Amino acid sequence: MYVNRVLDLSVQGAKVLLQAAIAKAEAMGVPQCIAIVDRGGNLMVFERMEGAKLHSQFSAIQKAYTAVSAKVSTGQLPTDLAVGIALASGNRFATIAGGLPIEIHGEVIGGIGIGSGTDEQDIEVAEAAIEALKAAISSEAGS
Amino acid sequence: MYVNRVLDLSVQGAKVLLQAAIAKAEAMGVPQCIAIVDRGGNLMVFERMEGAKLHSQFSAIQKAYTAVSAKVSTGQLPTDLAVGIALASGNRFATIAGGLPIEIHGEVIGGIGIGSGTDEQDIEVAEAAIEALKAAISSEAGS
Amino acid sequence: MYVNRVLDLSVQGAKVLLQAAIAKAEAMGVPQCIAIVDRGGNLMVFERMEGAKLHSQFSAIQKAYTAVSAKVSTGQLPTDLAVGIALASGNRFATIAGGLPIEIHGEVIGGIGIGSGTDEQDIEVAEAAIEALKAAISSEAGS
Amino acid sequence: MYVNRVLDLSVQGAKVLLQAAIAKAEAMGVPQCIAIVDRGGNLMVFERMEGAKLHSQFSAIQKAYTAVSAKVSTGQLPTDLAVGIALASGNRFATIAGGLPIEIHGEVIGGIGIGSGTDEQDIEVAEAAIEALKAAISSEAGS
Repeated sequence: MYVNRVLDLSVQGAKVLLQAAIAKAEAMGVPQCIAIVDRGGNLMVFERMEGAKLHSQFSAIQKAYTAVSAKVSTGQLPTDLAVGIALASGNRFATIAGGLPIEIHGEVIGGIGIGSGTDEQDIEVAEAAIEALKAAISSEAGS
Repeated sequence: MYVNRVLDLSVQGAKVLLQAAIAKAEAMGVPQCIAIVDRGGNLMVFERMEGAKLHSQFSAIQKAYTAVSAKVSTGQLPTDLAVGIALASGNRFATIAGGLPIEIHGEVIGGIGIGSGTDEQDIEVAEAAIEALKAAISSEAGS
Repeated sequence: MYVNRVLDLSVQGAKVLLQAAIAKAEAMGVPQCIAIVDRGGNLMVFERMEGAKLHSQFSAIQKAYTAVSAKVSTGQLPTDLAVGIALASGNRFATIAGGLPIEIHGEVIGGIGIGSGTDEQDIEVAEAAIEALKAAISSEAGS
Repeated sequence: MYVNRVLDLSVQGAKVLLQAAIAKAEAMGVPQCIAIVDRGGNLMVFERMEGAKLHSQFSAIQKAYTAVSAKVSTGQLPTDLAVGIALASGNRFATIAGGLPIEIHGEVIGGIGIGSGTDEQDIEVAEAAIEALKAAISSEAGS
């Protein structure tokens, strides 16, 4: 086969992730930067909530890219190895937590990156966003 | 719809493009750098033919990226505008000819970038490669 | 002597390395990014196999460059020193494993870089590729 | 053939170029930055003469790289095209004069880049250096 039919995140899907992430971050009282990238690692939607950190506009995107690239959550490798990968890839690899791959029907179709909170807070927001997307897809399929 | 089914170039398809580009460049007697990127702009395959220019290893990739990104062939904008886009996008936009989008069944599914010849030579090689891919796909569909 | 006769990898040789690396990676069930550079550290051929990581398109090239540059396999230095070299060289030095020098007839004539697997998987693929090149050269010499 | 026997500049040869360039620049009364790269575009020897311009430490190297990469003297393309190539190759292409390829026995084996004078002065120094190398090689061959 010279071409593949693949699943990719739509902007509508990216917005479900973004809105759910914002809602979760508001509920937690922790302003966040939220980035969603497609399966090619390209930025789809982004929001820096009121009060979120300036540098997180960059790290949230990097986390989202890294998650879809590596197909696993960021921040799980030993630091030496992770920093080495970051250097070797021209700094296209986040070594810290807060990036999660978005897997739907067995395919990684995008990545979400959260930055401004603690590791745990960032991950909690990303997980809530992915849950919301999966719920929306299930609901759509069932209707 | 929260997700899209999209068409993407497979590695097998990328290799058809690469081999056809090499064959064309050999027939023309002009060694070339040849880069193929997928619909997300990420490098799939690359070859620098014996005698091709060193710096073209970079520009061929940039041309391929730009073509899939803009969904039109590179080198068609007025120079001032093209350079402006290159600067504004952090130098992720080739202003010169030799990058062509790969459109199959109405979707841009990748890009090809050729570098080391004149504008005309680069374009001729890219066009030959795309023709070869289309022929292979037609042949597969008809079999 | 004002000039040297030196041995350099040909594109044909680079393709032997690439194909053997792909075959090994397929046999292992681990999709890889594979980069081959010549004795000057310039990219010759590259392939990102279906499913390999996006960021490895960059790190595989960096590993290949580092191996031919340092004339030893990457990832063998203490981390602090390796990171220091990477920083001091403007990030032209991979600190992690997966890059091997290609030594033929006592000369380092190129480098191979593999990325997307574990350290051990990357090295195993690179070694298989170099073995295949050596076998091809022996076979050619003997014919 | 899986490997090529190619001609490369030796450090001894690079020093002949450098000394001849310095001698010529001194005779002209124009302090220069002088860079010599090998066939892979890697820096071999460099000197910034007393009084030469600071920024020319970078441009001389870029000119030498470009000359060996493109296998022709720098500064000969229309500006729009040359600037476009520079941008597309990640600024690895000098658009201005002062870089010359070093061709010996029909092979481009290195590049020389001169910077701090006018275009004409830079070229004159580079040409004198290459003449000196060719004379040294002829003399060696004849002895």
